[in-house]
Amino acid sequence: MKEAVIGIDIGGTFTKYGIVDRNGNCLVENSVSTDFTDDVNEYLENLYKNIEKSFSPFASEYEIKGVGIGAPNGNFYNGTIEYAPNLKWKGVVPLSNLVQKHYKVPVALTNDANAAAMGEMLFGGAKGMKDFIVITLGTGLGSGIVVNGEVVYGHDGFAGELGHITVRPDGRQCGCGRMGCLEAYASATGIRRTVYKFLADSLDDSELRNVSFNQLSADMITKHANKGDKIAIDAFEYTGHVLGQKLADIVACFSPEAIFLFGGLAKAGDFILQPTRKHMESNMMPIFRGKVKLLISGLGEVNAAVMGASALIWNELDK
Amino acid sequence: MKEAVIGIDIGGTFTKYGIVDRNGNCLVENSVSTDFTDDVNEYLENLYKNIEKSFSPFASEYEIKGVGIGAPNGNFYNGTIEYAPNLKWKGVVPLSNLVQKHYKVPVALTNDANAAAMGEMLFGGAKGMKDFIVITLGTGLGSGIVVNGEVVYGHDGFAGELGHITVRPDGRQCGCGRMGCLEAYASATGIRRTVYKFLADSLDDSELRNVSFNQLSADMITKHANKGDKIAIDAFEYTGHVLGQKLADIVACFSPEAIFLFGGLAKAGDFILQPTRKHMESNMMPIFRGKVKLLISGLGEVNAAVMGASALIWNELDK
Repeated sequence: MKEAVIGIDIGGTFTKYGIVDRNGNCLVENSVSTDFTDDVNEYLENLYKNIEKSFSPFASEYEIKGVGIGAPNGNFYNGTIEYAPNLKWKGVVPLSNLVQKHYKVPVALTNDANAAAMGEMLFGGAKGMKDFIVITLGTGLGSGIVVNGEVVYGHDGFAGELGHITVRPDGRQCGCGRMGCLEAYASATGIRRTVYKFLADSLDDSELRNVSFNQLSADMITKHANKGDKIAIDAFEYTGHVLGQKLADIVACFSPEAIFLFGGLAKAGDFILQPTRKHMESNMMPIFRGKVKLLISGLGEVNAAVMGASALIWNELDK
Repeated sequence: MKEAVIGIDIGGTFTKYGIVDRNGNCLVENSVSTDFTDDVNEYLENLYKNIEKSFSPFASEYEIKGVGIGAPNGNFYNGTIEYAPNLKWKGVVPLSNLVQKHYKVPVALTNDANAAAMGEMLFGGAKGMKDFIVITLGTGLGSGIVVNGEVVYGHDGFAGELGHITVRPDGRQCGCGRMGCLEAYASATGIRRTVYKFLADSLDDSELRNVSFNQLSADMITKHANKGDKIAIDAFEYTGHVLGQKLADIVACFSPEAIFLFGGLAKAGDFILQPTRKHMESNMMPIFRGKVKLLISGLGEVNAAVMGASALIWNELDK
């Protein structure tokens, strides 16, 4: 029998899953609803049923060796999801235990950004690296930090909250209840806020003046930047300025070989890379300058989250 | 034969050394001049001679198993001292190699703050901890970061430069060539600058108005704070405010069990601890609040640096 694992990425609306072999080939991928019920057992029954259906064409050839799970507020140490604001399950959910009882194989769980870092290390651009950081620029800013080949989980399992280091103590309101966090500036939501700030501050003409805040997306901002829209280009410069300054601090903490940008905003490519790199370099301590690669993630957008969750459990199985 | 190691702490003016057993008992400690020569071999010959003299009463009972060295700009990976501004040896000095050739035992070298962290873990307040940070508040601000029981060295050996994360991009001039670094505020030098800022900004009476900048020391500021001097007390509050804010960011990165303060400024005890703790807590992301201990180092001031250097090599020998 060949070996494979199940990778599961739990989001607020959908849960993606896939069956992935040791070389990172995804045999099958699919998704189910996350929020159709607030009963975690009912959710899992439906998930198991769908996984079984997806796996059945491969069942004669492959054996499932483990399950990896990426989830918001996932605690690696306890295998729990703890007080996740975007999920209907309240309090502390012992998800690893529940899944382990069903499949009777090892289960590992962490948050989506840590899973992305494992995916980058096993299957993406960080192959062979021991010290690197993955920054996910989606609705918020998540991060997975790898030191000496291991994800940094910290004392309580919640290390790596780079989205919540402070840019300005009296700055933008953040979803975490504080003000001025990095993710309020550097994320898909952050750049939308920046576009609106510039629409307010300047009188520059822009087609973005016809778009409501709720309609505005990071992709739309990239599209208008490509067409030469000054507000859109300035918004990327501002986002890269804030992000680059903070990455310079983060380099002083971790001295990584590379920092990978991942997620919605990373799709803007050079629009985000160039200003971020410029301000990271100019704010960095001299001994670190020119040493740290700033790269776009080497994982495809399509099934990166499932690849990350799979990498998480492959890494545990290989220990 | 009983086992011991040599711990060496290289400073700009003096080099301290000691013979330390596995339980952290320092059999003997002494010091030699560092800056009497700019020839590293001449310096080492003198150091070896003195160590031999100090060790001779113990030579029949103890065997030297290794040498640990703490040095400015010490690179753990290469065993080199690289471009240390406060030492007379220029460029890259392969110190571990030189010492290893002489003693023919394992040699480990790192910077003084990383050595302090190892000392804290083996012999101080961090016994049994796997995730903690030591902040040294001396002339500058150094840091040793331990994740999962290992010092974070990063890709190039220079991780953990927390003194050079930015407080204000346009702030105080820093010795590293940039502006607004944390150590320009939170260090023995930083609080002297803050006292002078307050003497300039306010008209408050203070005995410190009779002290020149060069005469002023952190001990003197503590002494006047103890006597109720408003400028001195305000300077501690300001220092704790800046340090606490940045520690909150550092907690978001590493989620440590404890942060230890060490060095000259840490001797001020509650004057520095209380404002730092208050502003760390109030700036921290809610999930980290009330979880992270802020403590004064458990290593004695007298031979802490030598204990740190010894711990470094004991830790390597025990791997």
